Amino acid sequence: MLSPSDGVPHFPGELFAREIHQQPEALLGLLEHEREYAALAHAIAERAPALIRFVGHGSSDNAATYGVYAFGLVPHLTAMRDSISLSVYYDAALDFSASVVLALSQSGRTPDVVEYVERARSRGAFTVALTNEPGSELEQAADATLPLAAGAESAVAATKTYVNQLAALALLAGGIAGRGVELAEALRATAELLSRSLSNLEADVRPVAASFAYVGRMYAIGRGLEFATAREVALKLTETCRIAAEPLTATSLAHGPVAALDSLFPVWTIASRDASLPAVVEAAARVRDAGATIVASGSAADEIDAPYVLPVPAAPTPLLAPLLSVVPGQLFAAALSQTKGFDADRPEGLNKVTIAR
Amino acid sequence: MLSPSDGVPHFPGELFAREIHQQPEALLGLLEHEREYAALAHAIAERAPALIRFVGHGSSDNAATYGVYAFGLVPHLTAMRDSISLSVYYDAALDFSASVVLALSQSGRTPDVVEYVERARSRGAFTVALTNEPGSELEQAADATLPLAAGAESAVAATKTYVNQLAALALLAGGIAGRGVELAEALRATAELLSRSLSNLEADVRPVAASFAYVGRMYAIGRGLEFATAREVALKLTETCRIAAEPLTATSLAHGPVAALDSLFPVWTIASRDASLPAVVEAAARVRDAGATIVASGSAADEIDAPYVLPVPAAPTPLLAPLLSVVPGQLFAAALSQTKGFDADRPEGLNKVTIAR
Repeated sequence: MLSPSDGVPHFPGELFAREIHQQPEALLGLLEHEREYAALAHAIAERAPALIRFVGHGSSDNAATYGVYAFGLVPHLTAMRDSISLSVYYDAALDFSASVVLALSQSGRTPDVVEYVERARSRGAFTVALTNEPGSELEQAADATLPLAAGAESAVAATKTYVNQLAALALLAGGIAGRGVELAEALRATAELLSRSLSNLEADVRPVAASFAYVGRMYAIGRGLEFATAREVALKLTETCRIAAEPLTATSLAHGPVAALDSLFPVWTIASRDASLPAVVEAAARVRDAGATIVASGSAADEIDAPYVLPVPAAPTPLLAPLLSVVPGQLFAAALSQTKGFDADRPEGLNKVTIAR
Repeated sequence: MLSPSDGVPHFPGELFAREIHQQPEALLGLLEHEREYAALAHAIAERAPALIRFVGHGSSDNAATYGVYAFGLVPHLTAMRDSISLSVYYDAALDFSASVVLALSQSGRTPDVVEYVERARSRGAFTVALTNEPGSELEQAADATLPLAAGAESAVAATKTYVNQLAALALLAGGIAGRGVELAEALRATAELLSRSLSNLEADVRPVAASFAYVGRMYAIGRGLEFATAREVALKLTETCRIAAEPLTATSLAHGPVAALDSLFPVWTIASRDASLPAVVEAAARVRDAGATIVASGSAADEIDAPYVLPVPAAPTPLLAPLLSVVPGQLFAAALSQTKGFDADRPEGLNKVTIAR
């Protein structure tokens, strides 16, 4: 299906599709840096931070959503997606002395992320840059650096850098809790599972995507660990297929947005087998009652009564489920974008490095 | 324009419209409780919390977005919208001992908010219920209570309870910083400004709303303090007009969603005169380049090159701008909902008290 990796795309969206398939390899690339992650995890654990602050935009912010759960569940640390504007625009005099900052930027060049790190550091935070570009401005601004090691990503819409960000956060959270080796093993197994299932997932997704050629708006819903996946799938659909796709937690859906649903407004649901599953099942029932079409994905997709079901294998541990459940969404975006004649490699109005403030 | 307040609506959306007009009066109702706010602010200041954790859904969560800024800017406390699912579904063993929880629920009956408060309290948090219903379950679960005092709200889509939540958070943040009296005065002046401008705003909004009868999707963008407004305006449009309206920070727009814009995908921008204004002006330029129509609102609406401009008066202090800038969005939703023949008082699939998990 894919042309050889000679770097030159032969059809629109080829880079995007190729990079989706490179994800198992990218994960293994990250795991080569296991020792660096273990060392930094040790340094963070020694500080016993009161608060982990994530910053990032786009897919990096979606990965941070996952990080809140990974850090809460594994080392039991409170983590938040911090407000960049509070520090960068308003220069709020916050106390960062008990905080560790994890700054996520694939390019390491996002201006307000770099500026946030400079300010947080000057106010006492221990700052860590997690980037795919060695030597970037973000690295220079931070106290410490972790490599994302996903390999060069050329499509504007992120895929392997996103999955590697999730893996990096899980590995770091594991290391802080003294469970780094266990998490690294589970990540290796996840890469293997993904490698074995990618072709089947792609074959499952393609005919479903074809039915969505005229869809203008969607919701993507998840809960808990999988809310990050809902955010990332929605972003891929928005960027590459020009669908107004909004991510919602399963619970938020009932607090307003369900009112807008109808038969032309499909909902992508992510259902994984963990404690948040009942909330997703309940939300799917509301979606059905509103007459909207459901695409069910995730390891517990078969628990959802839906016309389109795109299950993924269960991860070695529920914590790593989001690394697998995002993949049908990526493949769906790739296939639908192609059906619509768009170029997922270079979406309208976007650049690989976003310099917007 | 409005029928007498006899409680019985004479046309669909009448309750919603009436409650928008009751907002100045609701603000004054809250200010009657100035002493209770001052006392609780004092109790919170004495604890010197390391972290303020907000929880809430829907409009309450939007108010929490504002709270992050109010607490960061006035008493310089780090505040976050906490993950409910991390505690309620996953039972994460987080340390709440240095935290103050502010739980927002208009009804005081949102199940997972009540359960979150119970768990946070048992893990050492000082918990405060901010609700419009005295004696509610949420009050019973929390250590302390603050009245929202907005008066009965009958329309399903929240208006005056939202504005009173903003005011309550500003007043509490002010009290913690020893600036409670100053904030109360500014809130009184804001109520007065709003009272004087509501009829004019309504007259400005009505013809604009009529042009949007066939719009299916929108973004609402703001930055900093006004991101809460973007979230709340988007929610009103979604609930009452069945528009897929997604809130975005001005910066997030450039990190993906701008790719989906076209001439049928208008963008509501909130531009207020503060340090975040340049980011909003820059985002509006991207929106224009993408060929999308802009509605500019806020006190600096005239800084945006837009076909529709709905300015609001400058607030007595920039911190309170969101109490005024949300109003054109509420009025627009009321007018457009009527144009489309919907009932803003009882949107499809929603109840006043949401019991979804």
